[in-house]
Amino acid sequence: MSKVAIIMGSISDMPVMQEAIEVLKGFGIEIEVDIVSAHRTPEKLFDFSQNAHTRGISVVIAGAGGAAHLPGMVASMSPLPVIGVPVKSSNSIDGWDSILSILQMPGGVPVATVALNGAKNAGILAAQIIGSHDKNILDKVIQYKLGLKESVIIASESLLKQ
Amino acid sequence: MSKVAIIMGSISDMPVMQEAIEVLKGFGIEIEVDIVSAHRTPEKLFDFSQNAHTRGISVVIAGAGGAAHLPGMVASMSPLPVIGVPVKSSNSIDGWDSILSILQMPGGVPVATVALNGAKNAGILAAQIIGSHDKNILDKVIQYKLGLKESVIIASESLLKQ
Amino acid sequence: MSKVAIIMGSISDMPVMQEAIEVLKGFGIEIEVDIVSAHRTPEKLFDFSQNAHTRGISVVIAGAGGAAHLPGMVASMSPLPVIGVPVKSSNSIDGWDSILSILQMPGGVPVATVALNGAKNAGILAAQIIGSHDKNILDKVIQYKLGLKESVIIASESLLKQ
Amino acid sequence: MSKVAIIMGSISDMPVMQEAIEVLKGFGIEIEVDIVSAHRTPEKLFDFSQNAHTRGISVVIAGAGGAAHLPGMVASMSPLPVIGVPVKSSNSIDGWDSILSILQMPGGVPVATVALNGAKNAGILAAQIIGSHDKNILDKVIQYKLGLKESVIIASESLLKQ
Amino acid sequence: MSKVAIIMGSISDMPVMQEAIEVLKGFGIEIEVDIVSAHRTPEKLFDFSQNAHTRGISVVIAGAGGAAHLPGMVASMSPLPVIGVPVKSSNSIDGWDSILSILQMPGGVPVATVALNGAKNAGILAAQIIGSHDKNILDKVIQYKLGLKESVIIASESLLKQ
Amino acid sequence: MSKVAIIMGSISDMPVMQEAIEVLKGFGIEIEVDIVSAHRTPEKLFDFSQNAHTRGISVVIAGAGGAAHLPGMVASMSPLPVIGVPVKSSNSIDGWDSILSILQMPGGVPVATVALNGAKNAGILAAQIIGSHDKNILDKVIQYKLGLKESVIIASESLLKQ
Amino acid sequence: MSKVAIIMGSISDMPVMQEAIEVLKGFGIEIEVDIVSAHRTPEKLFDFSQNAHTRGISVVIAGAGGAAHLPGMVASMSPLPVIGVPVKSSNSIDGWDSILSILQMPGGVPVATVALNGAKNAGILAAQIIGSHDKNILDKVIQYKLGLKESVIIASESLLKQ
Amino acid sequence: MSKVAIIMGSISDMPVMQEAIEVLKGFGIEIEVDIVSAHRTPEKLFDFSQNAHTRGISVVIAGAGGAAHLPGMVASMSPLPVIGVPVKSSNSIDGWDSILSILQMPGGVPVATVALNGAKNAGILAAQIIGSHDKNILDKVIQYKLGLKESVIIASESLLKQ
Repeated sequence: MSKVAIIMGSISDMPVMQEAIEVLKGFGIEIEVDIVSAHRTPEKLFDFSQNAHTRGISVVIAGAGGAAHLPGMVASMSPLPVIGVPVKSSNSIDGWDSILSILQMPGGVPVATVALNGAKNAGILAAQIIGSHDKNILDKVIQYKLGLKESVIIASESLLKQ
Repeated sequence: MSKVAIIMGSISDMPVMQEAIEVLKGFGIEIEVDIVSAHRTPEKLFDFSQNAHTRGISVVIAGAGGAAHLPGMVASMSPLPVIGVPVKSSNSIDGWDSILSILQMPGGVPVATVALNGAKNAGILAAQIIGSHDKNILDKVIQYKLGLKESVIIASESLLKQ
Repeated sequence: MSKVAIIMGSISDMPVMQEAIEVLKGFGIEIEVDIVSAHRTPEKLFDFSQNAHTRGISVVIAGAGGAAHLPGMVASMSPLPVIGVPVKSSNSIDGWDSILSILQMPGGVPVATVALNGAKNAGILAAQIIGSHDKNILDKVIQYKLGLKESVIIASESLLKQ
Repeated sequence: MSKVAIIMGSISDMPVMQEAIEVLKGFGIEIEVDIVSAHRTPEKLFDFSQNAHTRGISVVIAGAGGAAHLPGMVASMSPLPVIGVPVKSSNSIDGWDSILSILQMPGGVPVATVALNGAKNAGILAAQIIGSHDKNILDKVIQYKLGLKESVIIASESLLKQ
Repeated sequence: MSKVAIIMGSISDMPVMQEAIEVLKGFGIEIEVDIVSAHRTPEKLFDFSQNAHTRGISVVIAGAGGAAHLPGMVASMSPLPVIGVPVKSSNSIDGWDSILSILQMPGGVPVATVALNGAKNAGILAAQIIGSHDKNILDKVIQYKLGLKESVIIASESLLKQ
Repeated sequence: MSKVAIIMGSISDMPVMQEAIEVLKGFGIEIEVDIVSAHRTPEKLFDFSQNAHTRGISVVIAGAGGAAHLPGMVASMSPLPVIGVPVKSSNSIDGWDSILSILQMPGGVPVATVALNGAKNAGILAAQIIGSHDKNILDKVIQYKLGLKESVIIASESLLKQ
Repeated sequence: MSKVAIIMGSISDMPVMQEAIEVLKGFGIEIEVDIVSAHRTPEKLFDFSQNAHTRGISVVIAGAGGAAHLPGMVASMSPLPVIGVPVKSSNSIDGWDSILSILQMPGGVPVATVALNGAKNAGILAAQIIGSHDKNILDKVIQYKLGLKESVIIASESLLKQ
Repeated sequence: MSKVAIIMGSISDMPVMQEAIEVLKGFGIEIEVDIVSAHRTPEKLFDFSQNAHTRGISVVIAGAGGAAHLPGMVASMSPLPVIGVPVKSSNSIDGWDSILSILQMPGGVPVATVALNGAKNAGILAAQIIGSHDKNILDKVIQYKLGLKESVIIASESLLKQ
């Protein structure tokens, strides 16, 4: 069965990354969560990146702020799809640094970047990647999108009643 | 077998998107290519997005410039992973408009965004998504990354000989 | 008689969009208000956009934040003038994403964009559009502008008295 | 019959603004074209703005570059809808100055802003404003949008034949 | 004797502009203060701008926020030096709109722009302009700069004592 | 009689700064021109700044690119009004570095900043500063502005004849 | 023995710059701290910059906000390595002004720029510069980096235990 | 004797990085030059970074473009001072991505960042770092700065002769 690894550069990224954890749990997808700092634990970064695909992991979600090198460095060493979450950390310049450090990867080494602080969408994207070959998860994604629609319809109806 | 759809908002996006086509052909992955304009052919957008996953497509790559709504609108209607390529079109403000229109999707509707004009990386990312459950493609991705390494080593050696 | 539709992507846009509602009520212009999410209720988006002009609506005001596709998607399917209000939502990058996603529409599909959170101006602009062929509303717009002038004159006088 | 005034801050804006002229001619809408500089002919700006609505003009299109004050100053003195075209002039900072000077109008004085150099869309928007109460023009707008669709379909077919 | 006019687009700019008033009072320079809105009281703008130099005014300080047209419009109609203060108003995009709307004036119509919310510096600059031909004020400017130096030296000494 | 000093950080700024020279010659105002580099000739910067007002100079125009410190450093040592011209040099980031380095001076040390590459406006502003107390130059400024108006009227007439 | 000078443009920069002081004390490196304002005490700036290398100082750390000229001006007059800390002061535009004023120095006059408010890193960088020729400090830097790693490992372990 | 390593992410960075090589040769400082790609040769990155300080290298200069991770990753593994050169590569967004990816490093891992394409200044900064403890190089830096001054004086004299 497919497993998603959720890693982040610092424990301070946890409040943002928590949303990815919850979304994936909601889809019933197995996860592992860890702190891997590109700048402070480079050996761990190497170990993680080079071996993730041999440990049953299908997708990596990596969140980091400021000059965010974690997603790109994992992508440089792993053949798996890597989803990058730019985190608007306290030392960030309105998030521009995280976004550009993750998004603007050179040719050959893609990172699937989501919106600033978009950990929820990173979780959904990981589910969609698994769903692209797993009918059970695909159906759950379809259900999820119907749920989005319903919440809008309910809000709309309550608005029209006013 | 997995198939990747490559769509773009305008024929003028073709020179950029061509790189995704070539990368995927190189990986031996089946593709289909079409023009689907969110703003000029909304019905086609609907048809494409709602049915892609029923036609054997696993991943969608969508490229667009300016106020680029194509990737996000496909993502709103398809349960498949959608990769967005911001195109620096002639009417773009240095590409910022395309990037932000594709990247900053609301919670619930992710787009896997790659670098500005990063169609090559979109192709590689699609291969990695397929490779996450297809050993044959995974091996090709691993080979591809070894190739990247070798090209640097050759450049390095030729530099040191000078 | 002319009617203005005010739609928004999420109930969370209501505090901003409320100003458009109030301005149009002040001009005595009939309105309808609804939530239409480009990303979560695409079918409703289609229905709304393709039929608005057949239901007696003259002008559409559409507000959305982040990668704001609602105004542009309505404009792609409706022959009516569409006024876009970029909303500085909580997940926005200082509003730049909303502004560029709404403003930078491709040739052929205009959106009349107003300032960030500028719902009040969207309401006035809708009144001016109706006023361009409705003498009664035109006179009210002229009166409104005289009111703006007076409020400045009163502030100026109270300042000079100090 | 409705008439559209197209004004610009400098003769050097003509290559950009020409597209608005051509679009409106294509719709069979009467136009007048003039140069009105907010900074160099302020009296003419006054005369134009205060009297346009008394001379049979329904909509004003105003284009300007750099610190672009023309659209906003017309809007401050005219009750008509004013469409602003930010022009990327030679002395502009990538167009950001023109965009922000036109878009970010204060509450009470809207300018309907289109994309950078988006004079074509300004022309279409003016037609849509007239079409909101003129069935003949509305039908032409609907036809125009069908034409956009067809050009995409032709491009798509020629692509698929390759 | 030289007089400085301090005008602003809205009473809400007063907390920022107050600093210019205080600085000029400190230099013993006569001032007049008023609210002149480019967008809401265009006639007053015209009267003020065309006549300021005939009423004994030597320098105009104009503050405004958002799409700030007041300083540039005064400069277009007055032969006097106009100092522009970009105000970071509540509807501003981090001040970038005010700065670019005031700074990027076209050739022929300069505005002497100071820093965002830099009303204090606008006051000092006005004093320097008067001081360029008035020995008494020049001496006060020289004294003022000595005062700046002393405040740093005192802070430095108190720091070194710690 | 009043004299204007035009200095620049590098001989490469001359093509931009030339416009200030020509404008001031046109007004019949005496000038001196020199290269003073804040970073390469700091002693000359000191000498120039501390003594300019004792040598009959009334206004300083200083142009520089990149991290442009020349205008601000002159302003820190001279009691004269200093006009800063941000130059878009080859090593500049679209001019943003020059603009912000000159504009955002701290309280106490103003620089009168003009548009990017706006040396012509720097010259006119210097003339306006002198004109604020010299009736002869004031009249020339008034004539200059009439000339601006006439050039627009001629362009307008030639346009209407077409 | 090597000494590091830590200077700042204003006492208000102290809360940010304090981190550099603490880091260097932690490394057992001798420091001196002072306020030197490029704009308010230019003579002190000259004295400091021209003589620092003759007083046993090896590295200068200079912090400043807004149009931050202090680091660059010291670098123009001192042969020592100068580390610049862009400070996000209250009058700054989100820190962009400080960053660009310090980073974009012209060819010939480098400033070693660290992140916005990155005084801690400035201290570490100064230690690394001294460590490049001082085995004792180099070892302390190596120990410091091991400490960074351990703090991540502890956070990771506590996370996995949850 | 001190040695400087100059590394870059791609052979395409060579035209920019060449300036660092030339400057250091001019100072008579020993160099080694190599291509080390963070994303394509991560093992080489590891080897280089962990061992540079044991091979007699005192300072590392690392240049890279786009999402530039090379300087920061070297800094994460080496105790040496690392100078980062943001390169404006063809796939860069006006250089902003390279600048922010290098500059905005987290606390604990500094990179001494120079201007966009500022390889010349990186070379000078490396010389200054060596000069901070090597009297011979310090004297050469002092001579270099005198040379800068003379080139300005010659340009100034030739200007005044005109």
